[in-house]
Amino acid sequence: MERIAVGMLGLGNVGSGVAHLLGQCGDRIAVRSGKRVDLKWAVVRDPAKSRDVDLAGVRLVTDARRVIEDPEVGVVIEAMGGTDPALSLILEALAAGKDVVTANKALLAEHGPQVFAQARKYGRAIAFEGSVGGGIPIIQALGVSLAANQVQSLAAIVNGTCNFILSAMTQDGLTYDVALRQAQELGYAEADPTLDVDGSDTAHKLAILAQLAFGASVKTAQIAREGIDRLQLADLKYAAELGYAIKLLALAKLSDSGLELRVAPTLVKKGTPLAEVRGPYNAIRVVGDAVGDTFFYGRGAGMMPTASAVVGDLIDVVVGRAALTSRALNLWPEAAPAPRLSSAAQVRSRYYLRFTIADRPGVLAALAQALGAHAISIASVIQHDPGDDAPADSPVPLVIMTHSAVEAELTAALAEIDRLDVVRAPSICLGVEE
Amino acid sequence: MERIAVGMLGLGNVGSGVAHLLGQCGDRIAVRSGKRVDLKWAVVRDPAKSRDVDLAGVRLVTDARRVIEDPEVGVVIEAMGGTDPALSLILEALAAGKDVVTANKALLAEHGPQVFAQARKYGRAIAFEGSVGGGIPIIQALGVSLAANQVQSLAAIVNGTCNFILSAMTQDGLTYDVALRQAQELGYAEADPTLDVDGSDTAHKLAILAQLAFGASVKTAQIAREGIDRLQLADLKYAAELGYAIKLLALAKLSDSGLELRVAPTLVKKGTPLAEVRGPYNAIRVVGDAVGDTFFYGRGAGMMPTASAVVGDLIDVVVGRAALTSRALNLWPEAAPAPRLSSAAQVRSRYYLRFTIADRPGVLAALAQALGAHAISIASVIQHDPGDDAPADSPVPLVIMTHSAVEAELTAALAEIDRLDVVRAPSICLGVEE
Repeated sequence: MERIAVGMLGLGNVGSGVAHLLGQCGDRIAVRSGKRVDLKWAVVRDPAKSRDVDLAGVRLVTDARRVIEDPEVGVVIEAMGGTDPALSLILEALAAGKDVVTANKALLAEHGPQVFAQARKYGRAIAFEGSVGGGIPIIQALGVSLAANQVQSLAAIVNGTCNFILSAMTQDGLTYDVALRQAQELGYAEADPTLDVDGSDTAHKLAILAQLAFGASVKTAQIAREGIDRLQLADLKYAAELGYAIKLLALAKLSDSGLELRVAPTLVKKGTPLAEVRGPYNAIRVVGDAVGDTFFYGRGAGMMPTASAVVGDLIDVVVGRAALTSRALNLWPEAAPAPRLSSAAQVRSRYYLRFTIADRPGVLAALAQALGAHAISIASVIQHDPGDDAPADSPVPLVIMTHSAVEAELTAALAEIDRLDVVRAPSICLGVEE
Repeated sequence: MERIAVGMLGLGNVGSGVAHLLGQCGDRIAVRSGKRVDLKWAVVRDPAKSRDVDLAGVRLVTDARRVIEDPEVGVVIEAMGGTDPALSLILEALAAGKDVVTANKALLAEHGPQVFAQARKYGRAIAFEGSVGGGIPIIQALGVSLAANQVQSLAAIVNGTCNFILSAMTQDGLTYDVALRQAQELGYAEADPTLDVDGSDTAHKLAILAQLAFGASVKTAQIAREGIDRLQLADLKYAAELGYAIKLLALAKLSDSGLELRVAPTLVKKGTPLAEVRGPYNAIRVVGDAVGDTFFYGRGAGMMPTASAVVGDLIDVVVGRAALTSRALNLWPEAAPAPRLSSAAQVRSRYYLRFTIADRPGVLAALAQALGAHAISIASVIQHDPGDDAPADSPVPLVIMTHSAVEAELTAALAEIDRLDVVRAPSICLGVEE
């Protein structure tokens, strides 16, 4: 049986999972691919460090060039994360004639054009199932299985940290800060969670999904992005009262006005599959013109789920499918026309609004008038009686759910409302996904 | 650009959907595959019949051999359904050097070994994403994306007719007969719904899934099968009271005692993804040793969702991936060892039991004793007060949910219980899926 030597760059969480799985499922890979895969090299910072995974037969080195220059190596798995030195090593590996498997979403989102141009130049394959949704095969679904469809929309929960925090806030009534600490204690959030909670990680993944589903080469910076770090528990509670959960969604919608891309905490109707995604799980809803709505769910991160995707990719590469897919998909093509992105002015949605107002006669009328002047009609209102004990003229919350409205009009209305002297705090506005 | 001629056998619901999609998405296929796909032939019973779909450029013929003997044709799409003449035409098409795309689950479940042996003999590809779960890419997921995993269990709702009927019974309190009529009126059930409601269709799909996930070549007849046609509304109501929905599940579980395969109406905890699958939708939960639990959801049948899968397969064939997958997967290999199937005696589950008993002192004790004698312990009981107006000694329902029990023990206990003179009707027993 033909043997294929594999070199792995990095032996952290994902790398260790891959090494473990390769140790376990060599026979399975042989059956499925007709080839023996040997993990020959692993590039690490400290070869002497003790590790939990069985690395018999694997040569640990610090110098990645040993791997890239080894003519026996057919596939390089990049499991370092980050851009430097991952990007230059991937480019070198491709130039040296190796196929590359990576789960590095930030790298693909930011440097996709360069990486895929290099792969084309040297006729190599890049497989990256692990980059979005961990073990959920969403890359394969969008790139291959649903290829007969024009995707019309995507709505995705692709950051397990955020989903864990939002689930804990919703189910246990924790504030954001307490829920974040719990996530950190359980290993679902990093010590510095910024890239997760500010929506950057979700935006990276959306950039990759947008390329696959719409052929849209967008930079992460082009994606309107809001995180969960300023989300207040009160809004999760009012949303629940209205029958909604709040999820950090990556949203992509194709319409006559172009492609709308955004990352934002969004209200999702309870009982729909997306709303029921709990804890660190991920899920992606894809609507295609032929298939209708589909939904993919699973563990979006973690050692073994991501390793499942990486080793699945490795099999795909070894069988020779990945090369055909890479060629057929022609991702991040050179000289691609800039995608026509919808401007916020054109986007329509229902909106959840929360105002902090003085508890005085006429205030609701003033707000309703400002909304009405911008053609925004009100679907429902929550204002609870503050009780007789509340000090007179103390600020009270007023929650309004609108019917479908144009975002530009809403922004203008909110600016006017926030200038009213009966309004005591900046208004809160969240989109609603049906 | 290279052109590939396609011949289609059958132009019913799925065939028309495929013709429509091919007419619409020719450019998309060209972009994704680098080739032009022309639907050259469609084999129909009556070429003169008027049809809703644009068939410009398609030659309608009654004789399938015209298609199979056309050297220009590279791919044959079988969209006739049934076994005769679909089986012999597929075998002839493969022998004539054509790749084959089919969504014919009954044919694959019953004649998989013959079809795949023929494909191997002539070095051709067979693609069959549409055979299970309509537009949901579960074949690709099990065959390719999750290939690094040993699948541990599958639980699938793969018959939209049954799921529609069960949803209507649950949500609207309809009896089975009324819900079936509603399904027929809405086009979700055939005039003769037998193969759907008796679980045969689900068993066919499970046979295919078992081959993909476990390499188990099982005949449909080897799969323990129960349909929904004898399900009573009362059991859906008691299940709901206990916090469960009832779904017709295809179940496959790997354990030390072998592979358990069964099709049965099963209690599924509300709030879990499977329980929330409504109407004609399908869903498949796959648990893999590396990936953990994953869940795939979408429209499981219908013209365009199935066409989405068939045209996706066609692209896969044209790109050349399907040939590699067919070879690598080596499905239904000749001389495959018989799978080690678990016998019911070894299967463990929680069970939902409903007894119809005389409303007399000591009856619950007699039942509990019979269960206890077989090491079956009771998790919860529902017995509602029949009210003072009920005639003395009239039969009343008693519902018991057990803890995990061995099926053989349960069967023995139920046989004893059904012989008690206080028991007025055969007991009802349904499994519970956690």
